[in-house]
Amino acid sequence: MEEDFTIIAKRAKTASKKMAVLSTELKNKALINIAQNILQNQSEIFEANSRDLNEAKTLVEKGELNRSAYNRLKLDENKMRDMIQGIKDIVSLDDPIGRILLKRELDAGLVLTKTSCPIGVLGIIFEARPDVITQVSALAIKSSNAVILKGGKESINTNKMIMSVIKDALDNTEGFPKDVLNQIFTREDVAEMLKQDKYIDLIIPRGGNKLVKFIKENTKIPVLGHADGICHIFVDESADLDKAKNIIIDSKTQYPSACNSVETVLIHKDFKFKNELTESLKDAGIEIILSPESWHIEYGEKKLSLKTVNSLEDAVEHINEYSSGHTESIITENEDSAKIFINSVDSSGVYHNVSTRFADGFRYGFGAEVGISTNKTHARGPVGLEGLTIYKYSIEGNGHIVKDYAEGKKQFHHKDIKV
Amino acid sequence: MEEDFTIIAKRAKTASKKMAVLSTELKNKALINIAQNILQNQSEIFEANSRDLNEAKTLVEKGELNRSAYNRLKLDENKMRDMIQGIKDIVSLDDPIGRILLKRELDAGLVLTKTSCPIGVLGIIFEARPDVITQVSALAIKSSNAVILKGGKESINTNKMIMSVIKDALDNTEGFPKDVLNQIFTREDVAEMLKQDKYIDLIIPRGGNKLVKFIKENTKIPVLGHADGICHIFVDESADLDKAKNIIIDSKTQYPSACNSVETVLIHKDFKFKNELTESLKDAGIEIILSPESWHIEYGEKKLSLKTVNSLEDAVEHINEYSSGHTESIITENEDSAKIFINSVDSSGVYHNVSTRFADGFRYGFGAEVGISTNKTHARGPVGLEGLTIYKYSIEGNGHIVKDYAEGKKQFHHKDIKV
Repeated sequence: MEEDFTIIAKRAKTASKKMAVLSTELKNKALINIAQNILQNQSEIFEANSRDLNEAKTLVEKGELNRSAYNRLKLDENKMRDMIQGIKDIVSLDDPIGRILLKRELDAGLVLTKTSCPIGVLGIIFEARPDVITQVSALAIKSSNAVILKGGKESINTNKMIMSVIKDALDNTEGFPKDVLNQIFTREDVAEMLKQDKYIDLIIPRGGNKLVKFIKENTKIPVLGHADGICHIFVDESADLDKAKNIIIDSKTQYPSACNSVETVLIHKDFKFKNELTESLKDAGIEIILSPESWHIEYGEKKLSLKTVNSLEDAVEHINEYSSGHTESIITENEDSAKIFINSVDSSGVYHNVSTRFADGFRYGFGAEVGISTNKTHARGPVGLEGLTIYKYSIEGNGHIVKDYAEGKKQFHHKDIKV
Repeated sequence: MEEDFTIIAKRAKTASKKMAVLSTELKNKALINIAQNILQNQSEIFEANSRDLNEAKTLVEKGELNRSAYNRLKLDENKMRDMIQGIKDIVSLDDPIGRILLKRELDAGLVLTKTSCPIGVLGIIFEARPDVITQVSALAIKSSNAVILKGGKESINTNKMIMSVIKDALDNTEGFPKDVLNQIFTREDVAEMLKQDKYIDLIIPRGGNKLVKFIKENTKIPVLGHADGICHIFVDESADLDKAKNIIIDSKTQYPSACNSVETVLIHKDFKFKNELTESLKDAGIEIILSPESWHIEYGEKKLSLKTVNSLEDAVEHINEYSSGHTESIITENEDSAKIFINSVDSSGVYHNVSTRFADGFRYGFGAEVGISTNKTHARGPVGLEGLTIYKYSIEGNGHIVKDYAEGKKQFHHKDIKV
């Protein structure tokens, strides 16, 4: 450990209290400064990245790192431009903090207000994509949260350089509190972080399902995210063949390793074009697996499990049993079947005649995506800035006491005030 | 164990899927049937309660149960009437399920809808108040959740009788699914329940802080509630003496064992009427404790800790360090101080010139209260029916695929649709 973790966590908590009262203007100014500083220090960041890439290349040659991880690690001009644009995009989003969610006069002169506020301290753990660090830092700043970041060890030089450029920009933003962004580097630090439920309010893992599962099993802090992405498409009796073909091929091949790719296709026994459909899937390079052992599998490549079901009800039952609760789609021309499917399937996204790949914060128009959650509390599905907020209740009064209401001397009248 | 717990949990999960599609009419009909059946079976319930009271009396005599627990256990005509009225009140609340929270056209013919839906299976653990069982069952039904209930062992006969009366009513409600309400009885069952994060989505403990702490430390399932209730009042330099007196006396004496009672009073060093204030608190029968060791204490009786602070900032810092995050109040005639206090204190309720005892779902006008949460995610403060819901996203399309958008053939236009 480079530093006792509790000190970092306490410092982040203290910083989070200062963040809670920051103006939108100051937060946006800080974000613009970060974007500018990254632009001005591109060459240093590329240089740090090339050091990481050199080490990673050796690992790839030894077979200790796969090619796709290497590619995710690599920063190029395009990724750098996207990183900078991503920060600017967050500047233009509405401030999620200080929104009045409810205003209610409880009685004369006694006004209740529910206002959105930051969660506090976020613990964010991500794998080999160094561009996550700017995105996550920008989201934390915009939502007035402090953050403790742990990046992948393969990108340590890039992460350190980007963080130093970001911190530089914040130091030069007058009035911006210290210690809002904190970085940790070791697995031991992560283990410590997962124990700090007194100081850390939410953990967001951004990475593969092994990482997410490990974190979920090793902390009492709420975790926002998803481990598996076992998405289903159900081809109903009355499905249109072309729609079924196009949607399944898009859902499987457009980006096979994405969490919202389809893994299992269920086909109604009375669907008349089963053979045509499977032939066209094979033509699209998709391998079809026909065994019950496959229903738990997230392939992440151009393979899918296929199963014939007797009815819509059987399809719903299969999905509610085997799905990871991420995203499912029904292909049908029957509106009633679509309605039953949408109401009965217990997943964060339930679609009709649409590719599962639409499950994404940007496609939903959230302007930013914190991650995709399969949780049943707090935030579900693609999570935007709002998922990094909670609310508090304030009451303004003039000496009001409960005794008067308990004894019937006064009565609540509960009149909502328009805001 | 009377039955393997996993079987109960799975059964509840299955029932929860059926609950998710129930109509408001059927849920309300079930609630009305429950209210009527309790009315018709009052004498059996009183009889079961008197058996519990007989056993409890022996425990009180032996010193193994305190008097207030005995009183909470006792059902009388008033409590029975309140129980029945409580169910009827929940009938009249708006259905929290199926509310459209967002409707957005992503592109022509591609419509995203965010709809409120039930969480799934709730695990509810409560102590010796048998009237909780009807309230919790009614809230679960109205919010389309299945529930597993564990009541206090002292009220086992009353709980079993009430549950049998409720189940009878549900069996006679045509179309109402089986196994929505499930009861467990032993500590071993509770231990099992806390492990079932696959089937149980939210745990709600209703009881003292020992119970809540034990549960929070022994489960990975989200827990809605609060352990401690260490509430503060800060008497600012410019506080009005009468308001300070009345509010502190109300906050401490109106119901000293309530979680929203004040435990620590902070007084600004320049407040001119400190002596008058402390004298009037003593006259109201409040014992004043002046030691740093007391700042962590929840008295639950007519005692409070008193501390002089140098400034508003010091008061905020003390509160953010020692508070349980429940409810705090500032007494001041200075609007700026009030604003800073409300924005800087990180608690679920932050008040100005108001008793802390207002922190309550009924007083807030929620119509029902699930509990009070000090969590920083999902639900905070007094939680109404909405806290038992989450949402899902559905998309209706007509063969839409992501490839068209990724390749720039089509663009999202993200137009919100009024609902």
